[in-house]
Amino acid sequence: MAIQQKLSLMIPGPTPVPEKVLQALSKHPIGHRSKEFQDLVESTSSNLQWLHQTKNDVLTITGSGTAAMEAGIINTLSKGDKVICGENGKFGERWVKVAKEFGLEVIKIDSEWGTPLNPEEFKKILEEDKQKEIKAVILTHSETSTGVINDLETISKYIQEHNKALSIIDCVTSLGACNVPVDEWKLDIVASGSQKGYMIPPGLSFIAMSQKAWAAAEQSNLPKFYLNLKSYRKSLLSNSNPYTPAVNLVFALDEALKMMREEGLENIFLRHNKHKLAMSNAIKALNLRLFANEKCLSPSITAIRTGEMDAEKFRKTIKNKFDILLAGGQDHLKGKIFRVGHLGYVNDRDIITVITAISNVLLDLGQITAKEAGEALVIASRYLNAK
Amino acid sequence: MAIQQKLSLMIPGPTPVPEKVLQALSKHPIGHRSKEFQDLVESTSSNLQWLHQTKNDVLTITGSGTAAMEAGIINTLSKGDKVICGENGKFGERWVKVAKEFGLEVIKIDSEWGTPLNPEEFKKILEEDKQKEIKAVILTHSETSTGVINDLETISKYIQEHNKALSIIDCVTSLGACNVPVDEWKLDIVASGSQKGYMIPPGLSFIAMSQKAWAAAEQSNLPKFYLNLKSYRKSLLSNSNPYTPAVNLVFALDEALKMMREEGLENIFLRHNKHKLAMSNAIKALNLRLFANEKCLSPSITAIRTGEMDAEKFRKTIKNKFDILLAGGQDHLKGKIFRVGHLGYVNDRDIITVITAISNVLLDLGQITAKEAGEALVIASRYLNAK
Repeated sequence: MAIQQKLSLMIPGPTPVPEKVLQALSKHPIGHRSKEFQDLVESTSSNLQWLHQTKNDVLTITGSGTAAMEAGIINTLSKGDKVICGENGKFGERWVKVAKEFGLEVIKIDSEWGTPLNPEEFKKILEEDKQKEIKAVILTHSETSTGVINDLETISKYIQEHNKALSIIDCVTSLGACNVPVDEWKLDIVASGSQKGYMIPPGLSFIAMSQKAWAAAEQSNLPKFYLNLKSYRKSLLSNSNPYTPAVNLVFALDEALKMMREEGLENIFLRHNKHKLAMSNAIKALNLRLFANEKCLSPSITAIRTGEMDAEKFRKTIKNKFDILLAGGQDHLKGKIFRVGHLGYVNDRDIITVITAISNVLLDLGQITAKEAGEALVIASRYLNAK
Repeated sequence: MAIQQKLSLMIPGPTPVPEKVLQALSKHPIGHRSKEFQDLVESTSSNLQWLHQTKNDVLTITGSGTAAMEAGIINTLSKGDKVICGENGKFGERWVKVAKEFGLEVIKIDSEWGTPLNPEEFKKILEEDKQKEIKAVILTHSETSTGVINDLETISKYIQEHNKALSIIDCVTSLGACNVPVDEWKLDIVASGSQKGYMIPPGLSFIAMSQKAWAAAEQSNLPKFYLNLKSYRKSLLSNSNPYTPAVNLVFALDEALKMMREEGLENIFLRHNKHKLAMSNAIKALNLRLFANEKCLSPSITAIRTGEMDAEKFRKTIKNKFDILLAGGQDHLKGKIFRVGHLGYVNDRDIITVITAISNVLLDLGQITAKEAGEALVIASRYLNAK
């Protein structure tokens, strides 16, 4: 029986928040122009650089990941600029909409939802652009809507070879879950959001900007004020903010980043990888099918087809019986898939719990045997126990 | 002696937060697409309408008050539109900058910082606009930088007589502090922020939109995505949000609005009015001068000239000795004034405490006599005790 408020969040955001972080969140606010707050901004900025593996600025804005992606686009481009947008899910679609809203000329590279973008298509179009008219390549690293991770490293190499276009990357569900070495991969603009790998509630988003991105910002003529990143950069020089920031979320951010540093990047990535493997392999053992191509599974989200069963009904049963919140499919996938988020503050217990809950409902429905349920757990354990 | 973290926030935002609201803030987040969250949105929306005294939509966005004002401007206007901007302080200045950034033609009506805008100047320009070219009047109700309240009721009447221009009003430090009857005064767009009268930490802002404002939104051609209010209106129909909202701040908002309803609008306005009178009259008794014209004192902020004394040094002394944070002067007023915020979760004790702390430092400096210090308290009490 479900007990109100004993909820387990297994959706791709908001993700579970550590108690220490919740406590930081509930402190009395302080003045955002005070020395104490400047110290906090200094600490979080330096830890954000560590998380992004970059020496460049990482800016914090009050807003969602969409605000951060929009900021990246409108600060570095101008009306009429030609851009490539990679689109293989709901978020890829969204960046096409943003680009069009601001009058950019969009060359779309798409692939079916559930399959990855083909880097060679990027290569081809970039190589053919002898006039260097393409100003940016916009894409989503981990597609939250489908559980697919795109091959950012390779695509980024092709962008480097073009040598002119900026990369503007939605790393909302990859940053803090798998390796995104911003400087090594020479990514220009990387956007992410607090309610994901960061383990804090929604409300903050982050934008890493390369020197090349800042140089492009000098040329950009799209109108902006609240999302004008130059104001944030100027304020950051004195560890401040141009507009009142979400002070309490910054308390939480500071605490969460310290926890992440304690765990270490490699351990964080390893943990997410194990969870992805345990989850996806157990799902197959339960006779369910993965929605995403298995060669490109996101470290953060597993999307699961339910075949004849109504996925919405299935996830509601899990919610009602076990207080575990799973995500549904978006748009045309509604009712066809459900998605398990395993991102941020998730431990092995959470993984075996959600697998068991899914098994339990499948057993109730007579869809699997006890043996299959047991085997799914054995498989999950094998991945969780792997060195 | 100051004790770390025993801070009293007497700045015009962030303002003090009730314990109950802090506790709501620190709850585990829930899914923003869940029924539970929809219930919360329904509850906060209806209470926001109560607070705004309006039957129209009040939208909640994740962002600062500046984001809300920008949203009001860019959703209802188009490039080249002629607007009047009232400017008598830092925030008035900011809305001029936003308007210019988006290519609007600005007619400025200004007055010296510390003095109110003259409604008759609005009347004159609006009356002369026979071609009805003026599309909006943008102004700040309570100017946080100077402690001046502008005569919004009268200016709004003149806007009504023009019958075409929209009113776009920054009510960031007036809403929830003094009477702003949005429907009665026929205000079209009213922006406010969470860290003010709302008694919650920064991160959310609010925009009330009249039917006339929505009609204008249909014509607006300025590019926007994250701040496109039509998306928020559409989502609100199902008590939802277009992008992940700051879930925990919405928990806090719900709690705070319930507290406000319990106190009642009239009591809230009365309390702020008493505090304004107690504060400003005690300050005069202490031989300090008010910065703002006494006929138009903001209910939320008292700005105080320090004459020969360095205001920054003065407020730092108060901070170091008593853990009371006061705000400094902005821009050219830095070092010349300090500002006491008495907005939101402030009681009579907070008022006599800050007066006493100011008196104490003035006594130490030999600037006042014990008798004067005592008289200031007597005067404050008289206003606080008034029916």
